[in-house]
Amino acid sequence: MSLLVVGSVAFDAIETPFGKVDRTLGGAASYFALAASHFVPVRMVAIVGQDFTDEHRAVFKGRKIDLTGLETAAGRSFFWSGRYSQNMNERTTLATELNVFADFKPALPPGYLDSQHIFLGNIDPGLQRSVLHQVNGRPRIVGLDTMNYWIEGSNEQLRETLKYVDILTINDDETRQLTGEHNLLRASRHVLELGPKILIVKRGEHGALMVHPKFIFSVPAFPLEEVHDPTGAGDTFAGGFMGFLAKAGNMSEQNLRRAMVYGSVLASFTVEQFGVERLAKVTRREINDRAHRFAKLTTFKL
Amino acid sequence: MSLLVVGSVAFDAIETPFGKVDRTLGGAASYFALAASHFVPVRMVAIVGQDFTDEHRAVFKGRKIDLTGLETAAGRSFFWSGRYSQNMNERTTLATELNVFADFKPALPPGYLDSQHIFLGNIDPGLQRSVLHQVNGRPRIVGLDTMNYWIEGSNEQLRETLKYVDILTINDDETRQLTGEHNLLRASRHVLELGPKILIVKRGEHGALMVHPKFIFSVPAFPLEEVHDPTGAGDTFAGGFMGFLAKAGNMSEQNLRRAMVYGSVLASFTVEQFGVERLAKVTRREINDRAHRFAKLTTFKL
Repeated sequence: MSLLVVGSVAFDAIETPFGKVDRTLGGAASYFALAASHFVPVRMVAIVGQDFTDEHRAVFKGRKIDLTGLETAAGRSFFWSGRYSQNMNERTTLATELNVFADFKPALPPGYLDSQHIFLGNIDPGLQRSVLHQVNGRPRIVGLDTMNYWIEGSNEQLRETLKYVDILTINDDETRQLTGEHNLLRASRHVLELGPKILIVKRGEHGALMVHPKFIFSVPAFPLEEVHDPTGAGDTFAGGFMGFLAKAGNMSEQNLRRAMVYGSVLASFTVEQFGVERLAKVTRREINDRAHRFAKLTTFKL
Repeated sequence: MSLLVVGSVAFDAIETPFGKVDRTLGGAASYFALAASHFVPVRMVAIVGQDFTDEHRAVFKGRKIDLTGLETAAGRSFFWSGRYSQNMNERTTLATELNVFADFKPALPPGYLDSQHIFLGNIDPGLQRSVLHQVNGRPRIVGLDTMNYWIEGSNEQLRETLKYVDILTINDDETRQLTGEHNLLRASRHVLELGPKILIVKRGEHGALMVHPKFIFSVPAFPLEEVHDPTGAGDTFAGGFMGFLAKAGNMSEQNLRRAMVYGSVLASFTVEQFGVERLAKVTRREINDRAHRFAKLTTFKL
């Protein structure tokens, strides 16, 4: 019941109204793996440069995160730098240096080929599909994240890849962009005609919406008094969601709803501090406590 | 257990990507009264001009809406005109003609003086307080709405009025503006130090958040495939919320949570068509059906 994730491992430089950090561990696969590893063993497929040392690897150690698929290539690791506005609703990318990530061709180690739960992080849709071709047989659950860059520039490739996807996780703008439909619910239903069985619309500080052919489920973001850095919240959500689901082993309605809650709970920890700092420290007990507070936040009886 | 509302009754001209209407019935008190009257008898205190005829009054007839306090003055009724952007997230006010509303001094008819449930719509905070001075004794539940105009221009008056308020309903920007605090949860807790026992933060298409000293409760906006005109959604929410609460007769946690749901449900009808068109037609059965669908939208078991 392990969970394979392919995506970026990077260094981030982040500036928010609450401070700044230089070259902290980042990348979608990092947040995803740390979150998902609370539920199931994670197999990572990513690429880093020679500047990525054992010290940086240390955050993954002692967890159920298999780094056999973390390739080290000649050159420097993916580097991203960004600055958030005063209200943190907008961010400006200051630098994107792909470095070794530019030539990333995900290659699964032999030990990963039996993976049944797979999350295809936000990379070229053709490469995402190549991961599915490598595994043996048909996986049980395939999740996928993408972004405006691929929706615009690799639309045909993306649409082909979406045919093999169970769960698509994108934000509201991307949902509209992918379908050309402004109304979010109509756009979401349209997405389900492209392949995915389930769409999760990530709405940042406004939570997330799951659209399934038979039901719709909405979760808020957990209200926090301290939000210091939103970076990685969506990737953490995806990790918590997919991790819970892989552990549950099926996509029953009840499990899908629970997975949404655990995804939101994990993401709420990430944003409390910079980078993966808080996420790397969170305990299973804190996760469960917050999940129960989350239930209190949304529960009512008619 | 009747519910008194003071506020605007107006004519609106509205343009959205889905069409336009000229001089349709509008104003906060209109939406509020139509929504609340599904739960309790409503007593309206407002002012209109001589252009407001029996034909316009007709929408309130046959409902539990007492118009004794609807004053007709020489001149024209309040007129507002606005245009929504393509995605309906922004609106431009094209015209605001206060007309008779400029000299509005709410005067309660004798039959209203025993009111125990009161909603002070968005008018001058001094006038809001004058309504509380007119009623006999101390009301059981007082709700209040306000806006940036009063927060900026009549801050001291508003703060004095807030001391007498149980439930404040404002949006997220107004919550931040009122407290000078950006973090919404911290800002909300700050608001509770100004007098209100409960704050409801209205977040438009993202739902609403209730902040109580002992709990926080979040509701999404009901996802809809047709949103034609957002005008009056917040006032409808307040009407459904206060109407349910006045009927329940107390502010128990369970009733406050339910009231949030019914407020959201009523508002979801309003936005489906222009002005009060849909709200004026909605049946109690439709309200209950949608409340149950709302429960399905948010329910999970850990």
